[in-house]
Amino acid sequence: MNTARALRRVVAQLADFLRWPSISTDPAHRRDVAGCARWLVAHLRSIGLAATLHPTPGHPVIVAHGPRKPGKPTVLIYGHYDVQPPDPVELWHSPPFEPAIRGCKLFARGAADNKGQVFAHITAVAQALREPDAALPNVIFLIEGEEEIGSLSIEPFLRAHRRELRPDFVLVSDTSMFAKNLPTITCSLRGVAAFELRVRGPARDLHSGIFGGTVANPATVLAQLIAALHDPRTGRVRVPGFYDGVRPLTAAQRRAWRRLPFSEDGYRRALGVPQLAGESGFTSLERRWARPTLEVNGIFGGYQGEGSKTVIPAWAGAKFTARLVPDQSPQRVVAATRRYLCAIAPPGVKLEFIPGHSAEPYIAPMDSRCMRAATNALRSVWGRPPVLVGEGGSIPIITSFKRILGADSVMVGFGLPDANAHSPDESLDLDVFARAIRASRLLLAELAR
Amino acid sequence: MNTARALRRVVAQLADFLRWPSISTDPAHRRDVAGCARWLVAHLRSIGLAATLHPTPGHPVIVAHGPRKPGKPTVLIYGHYDVQPPDPVELWHSPPFEPAIRGCKLFARGAADNKGQVFAHITAVAQALREPDAALPNVIFLIEGEEEIGSLSIEPFLRAHRRELRPDFVLVSDTSMFAKNLPTITCSLRGVAAFELRVRGPARDLHSGIFGGTVANPATVLAQLIAALHDPRTGRVRVPGFYDGVRPLTAAQRRAWRRLPFSEDGYRRALGVPQLAGESGFTSLERRWARPTLEVNGIFGGYQGEGSKTVIPAWAGAKFTARLVPDQSPQRVVAATRRYLCAIAPPGVKLEFIPGHSAEPYIAPMDSRCMRAATNALRSVWGRPPVLVGEGGSIPIITSFKRILGADSVMVGFGLPDANAHSPDESLDLDVFARAIRASRLLLAELAR
Repeated sequence: MNTARALRRVVAQLADFLRWPSISTDPAHRRDVAGCARWLVAHLRSIGLAATLHPTPGHPVIVAHGPRKPGKPTVLIYGHYDVQPPDPVELWHSPPFEPAIRGCKLFARGAADNKGQVFAHITAVAQALREPDAALPNVIFLIEGEEEIGSLSIEPFLRAHRRELRPDFVLVSDTSMFAKNLPTITCSLRGVAAFELRVRGPARDLHSGIFGGTVANPATVLAQLIAALHDPRTGRVRVPGFYDGVRPLTAAQRRAWRRLPFSEDGYRRALGVPQLAGESGFTSLERRWARPTLEVNGIFGGYQGEGSKTVIPAWAGAKFTARLVPDQSPQRVVAATRRYLCAIAPPGVKLEFIPGHSAEPYIAPMDSRCMRAATNALRSVWGRPPVLVGEGGSIPIITSFKRILGADSVMVGFGLPDANAHSPDESLDLDVFARAIRASRLLLAELAR
Repeated sequence: MNTARALRRVVAQLADFLRWPSISTDPAHRRDVAGCARWLVAHLRSIGLAATLHPTPGHPVIVAHGPRKPGKPTVLIYGHYDVQPPDPVELWHSPPFEPAIRGCKLFARGAADNKGQVFAHITAVAQALREPDAALPNVIFLIEGEEEIGSLSIEPFLRAHRRELRPDFVLVSDTSMFAKNLPTITCSLRGVAAFELRVRGPARDLHSGIFGGTVANPATVLAQLIAALHDPRTGRVRVPGFYDGVRPLTAAQRRAWRRLPFSEDGYRRALGVPQLAGESGFTSLERRWARPTLEVNGIFGGYQGEGSKTVIPAWAGAKFTARLVPDQSPQRVVAATRRYLCAIAPPGVKLEFIPGHSAEPYIAPMDSRCMRAATNALRSVWGRPPVLVGEGGSIPIITSFKRILGADSVMVGFGLPDANAHSPDESLDLDVFARAIRASRLLLAELAR
């Protein structure tokens, strides 16, 4: 971004993008989602890209190609034009779909997640294309409209368009900076493996007075099985084989993460717990980013209403997710957990084990050309090297890119921790936005060299 | 009962009693309950008793006095004229409120529970009163209309009428015979102590990916607490002090119960469990009748819907009831459990402990004059001594009699195990009914001697 006037023009365009209430989850906004997609295709064409709107069973996917650059690598820039609902609307200080600038921030739903971030890359490409010999690699934008509702159409789309989309690298800006002045690259994602367990006992709920004491209580057995999943002293998962393949943290990584501005006590207070907990020997960031977990997400059985009902429930159940780190395998973890639970269950009950969704953990190779280019670009714009962080959650699209397109992703996030993604008063810091455009230009230029 | 004709006349009177749909739980039947009470008062007066209808905030209580017999003991005969709803009506082979005789059984709602049983005692008194010098002690009938909905009015009624009702003994026929030809006295009831536990962790549900591994999961902690309540190897409760006051089973009692016609495997199949379980070293009957338990009645927390939601729940909870035997104290058991749970809970959560209802356990003195009279009467009518059994559930009215009136109860049940109380095709075995009348006469006569 060379001048304040140029930035104002770009922000005005972004504001047009943000005015569309492209709320993917709400059928009442289906036409707004479609309108937003058409607006974006028109904009991408206006800057010189070959943009196509692809209908899907859900919302359209947009693909836009830059000029062919034979011999140069291909970078696929992923983003999404759909947004979360703005509720509760009454907590916004300006209407969510009427972008407003206050201080150095632009407020609107989608400002950070993800319209603002993807628009930084679009603008970088637009600027490059206005120059006589655009310093660009082969650029493909892939911008979907269903990220906030689970990206249901994108996997089939990737499979169907595998030949057209053959990137060397994927560039994704849909994560956060660790702090305002810390350029940040997210290097790993935890995977996930969901399953449900049901413990079945008597054929029907039994009167706990008349029959109590003569049959195994399924809720008690469920509790015993859950209790057996962890060593309460160390917080470690007791399932044999659970930690198979877990990459140990390197000393360098631990040192780097310990230098991040992070207060364990501030974190504790933010979550509202009397004391933090977890696997012993690790900090909270290490526990979130580099260690696997096995959590109960829901538990249920018997009488849940007011007062009491004196039954021994016929069954009880729980829902679980394991969070996985490289190189654990969701399938192996689920199988090991099932084996363990079946082995320790007492003979008075029957177990039912229902596997659920899963996603592989992911770790980005640090030595790729794109990762180096991103690192250099961020260092050059912010005057300091990026911090390398992990992400405790899963971003399934990243593993889809790896699995279907064979390409690794570089996750460079430009959302600030206080950007309020998914909350009222979502915002984009315009200083960060301007830097993001410059960083994107540098990154693309280095890939084009 | 002397002649078949006399029995037919009594059964016709009982049928009039059974025709009233005195369903206490259903406001639509309020007038039927009142009508049934008035019919019963008229009947009690017709046989020579001084019967009174006492209104309550719920359904009326009936008190009927026999002739004063100075110097003789007073026996209070308790029963109830209200019945369970007949649903599902379509499963009845004759309409529930049109009494029908098939084989040696009378089918109607309330035939066993409790109109038929209390009517046996009414008939015994009626027969005695028709004789020149009625061999009766002082007899008081106390027949309520709210037994099936928790006997809410009876405690205040007992307190208000403590002086009028000063029995030496209480006689209750609202239990079952262990088997068709086994006259049965129920000698003990388990008590109950209910409480609820909530385990609170983070201030709100947390994303299990982003935050998982850094806070104690309340559902996991709840499971660990529940698991710590029992020794899974022995089935014994681990709460220190839980077994304080438990009377050991006597060798004689164990021998007597082991002689009862009871098949562990038939019982297992009836409950539909793969294997029976419980405190080691005890049979199923001992576990039900003479050993305390601590059961989970319900468990809940986090996401319970379809599929999965990847949260660490802010809290999880469970409802419990302990079943108690003499001389455990509900208050002491609840306090000990609370202390134990608070002591073992990890520091990452807060516990909330909510005490609920409770009832004392009960054991009938075997050496009372009324118990001896009942034993002799049953032996004389059935030609074999009664079996002495326990009851795993609680019958709060029995402990109310003890606490408020200071009187012990003798529980002589005339329902058969297949009487279908609370179910379609409820029945009264007319042979048992005739014997019950004879036994009641003998019992009262012995008390009058």
